[in-house]
Amino acid sequence: MSEKNYQIRLKSRPKGWVSPENFDYVEAEIPDIGDGQVLIRNLYLSVDPYMRGRMNDAPSYIPPFQIGEVLEAGVVGQVIKSNNPKFAQGDHVVGMLGWELYSRSDGSGLMKVDPSLAPLSYYLGILGMPGMTAYVGLTAIGEAKKGETLFVSAASGAVGSVVGQLGRIFGCHVVGCAGADDKVAYLTQELGFDRAFNYKTAGQVHKKLAELCPAGIDVNFENVGGEILEAALWNMSNFGRIVLCGLIAHYNDEKMAPGPRGMGLIIQRRLKVQGFIVFDHMDLGMEYIQKAAGWLKDGQLKYHESVAEGLDQAPQAFIGMLKGENFGKQVVKLD
Amino acid sequence: MSEKNYQIRLKSRPKGWVSPENFDYVEAEIPDIGDGQVLIRNLYLSVDPYMRGRMNDAPSYIPPFQIGEVLEAGVVGQVIKSNNPKFAQGDHVVGMLGWELYSRSDGSGLMKVDPSLAPLSYYLGILGMPGMTAYVGLTAIGEAKKGETLFVSAASGAVGSVVGQLGRIFGCHVVGCAGADDKVAYLTQELGFDRAFNYKTAGQVHKKLAELCPAGIDVNFENVGGEILEAALWNMSNFGRIVLCGLIAHYNDEKMAPGPRGMGLIIQRRLKVQGFIVFDHMDLGMEYIQKAAGWLKDGQLKYHESVAEGLDQAPQAFIGMLKGENFGKQVVKLD
Repeated sequence: MSEKNYQIRLKSRPKGWVSPENFDYVEAEIPDIGDGQVLIRNLYLSVDPYMRGRMNDAPSYIPPFQIGEVLEAGVVGQVIKSNNPKFAQGDHVVGMLGWELYSRSDGSGLMKVDPSLAPLSYYLGILGMPGMTAYVGLTAIGEAKKGETLFVSAASGAVGSVVGQLGRIFGCHVVGCAGADDKVAYLTQELGFDRAFNYKTAGQVHKKLAELCPAGIDVNFENVGGEILEAALWNMSNFGRIVLCGLIAHYNDEKMAPGPRGMGLIIQRRLKVQGFIVFDHMDLGMEYIQKAAGWLKDGQLKYHESVAEGLDQAPQAFIGMLKGENFGKQVVKLD
Repeated sequence: MSEKNYQIRLKSRPKGWVSPENFDYVEAEIPDIGDGQVLIRNLYLSVDPYMRGRMNDAPSYIPPFQIGEVLEAGVVGQVIKSNNPKFAQGDHVVGMLGWELYSRSDGSGLMKVDPSLAPLSYYLGILGMPGMTAYVGLTAIGEAKKGETLFVSAASGAVGSVVGQLGRIFGCHVVGCAGADDKVAYLTQELGFDRAFNYKTAGQVHKKLAELCPAGIDVNFENVGGEILEAALWNMSNFGRIVLCGLIAHYNDEKMAPGPRGMGLIIQRRLKVQGFIVFDHMDLGMEYIQKAAGWLKDGQLKYHESVAEGLDQAPQAFIGMLKGENFGKQVVKLD
């Protein structure tokens, strides 16, 4: 375990694709803690698509990263010093902390996690924000029901892989797409998707969807956007729901891309297109953690991680994730 | 009253804008009626934006018009012969009937209306499908609440003018746009809109909306699409609702136009974009008729019609309505 603190700070804002030059890897002090604060040794750090938006200087649901400041991420760590009665030395916690080895926190937004229930890194993925996002989106927003057809894009990703498995547990006909053949095989052979395809080699996505979803799509859990969202829109059933979770296809656009062609179908087929943020639904999120721990134990939920080693590898892990090079949830191991 | 029947039939499908050449005005037999049927003398005929979609040979929520067949419309008429126990000679009715002077019906979808409650033509507008559409969209889909900001496009139209007035009755801050200065004046001076603007002369619509809706738009009742929808999207408040009622800007497109730029805002601001068809919500529609008759009586609801005279004028009235040349609800008087 390092005796020093290291941090990754935002050096410059990317234009288009993120590059390693946008990050600074620097040595820093291990912070002192004051009254009510805790010192956390960070163990795992999560890199997620939404962070790309925070690198732009634009208002959003969370404020943008500032140049020269430490980047933020979902982090699992261990309390090593505590002046806060809610946390004891040795507690494992998850929260929004820095891309750094040691973080100081006043405990707000920090949640204790149980290391005996699942490996600690799971709290950044299937038992963390991505898993909760899948559950909230599929239930509160998508209202997925037994017998319905569910289509999920980026289906082997941190959120998508949970969406598809939950859809299966709920009794949906589950179709997914991913961008590599091994990911597609993983969806059907390991995660129990009914059908899956490689959107890069499938030809016209809307025709492929028409083939795999002959009764139409009732719930589209959308993580990608662009051509895939348009293809899904064209294949929606009457009264279908498009759960807008992410639009990763556009995160590196320098100019705003137009939306899908065929907006008129939203009227004709009485569709609902709804965006959501998991933080608005934390009650449901906690309900999910309870259920998911059980489903993991009895094998109904499976989980796959890509683990990068070392804080200095975090920028590359983040960039690779944006390009779809990871397989399953991308985390960075810090010790 | 004509002793003969006349009809307007679809002669050819329009490419792009509809033209008079797409219609045939022909003499026809006054139909005989069989068991359970009624013969109706049609008095008023409604021309509406959705009809443009039915002129294309494309599947939608109602089947396309067929070449050589009589066009269909909302019609108010009077029963002049009845073999159906539900309707007596002399009854006034509204229903989907032909662009013709005499129609035969088996009574399905036919509704009796009360000529003492309001002028008969009102059942094609403020007391008919357009009014019900406004109410259903604003309540069931838009969930408009007191104190919220409502923006409605095509605000002087058959649906929009009711939407804005209902918004006022519900206690919303109501902003509307229209395509002519006299229409804009009508919105604020007669219909009680809080603010209104001419989208053709206002410069960039999204800036105008930012000025008139400083707290953001909570409910966008969208009748137009294109640049106006995009501008509304950019000005939505968190948890806002976009009620997709019509996209008249696109009805004459030969190629599918792209959707609005800024789809990512749907996620960031947790928006809901929902399409609907009034026929799915007829209970609410009937609830509306009851309320609206009262509001009309006590002056809370106002109504303006454009009346074309004669069946042969119906194609031109329809085309003019698509181009925004009408002022208020466009109907055609048939006798």
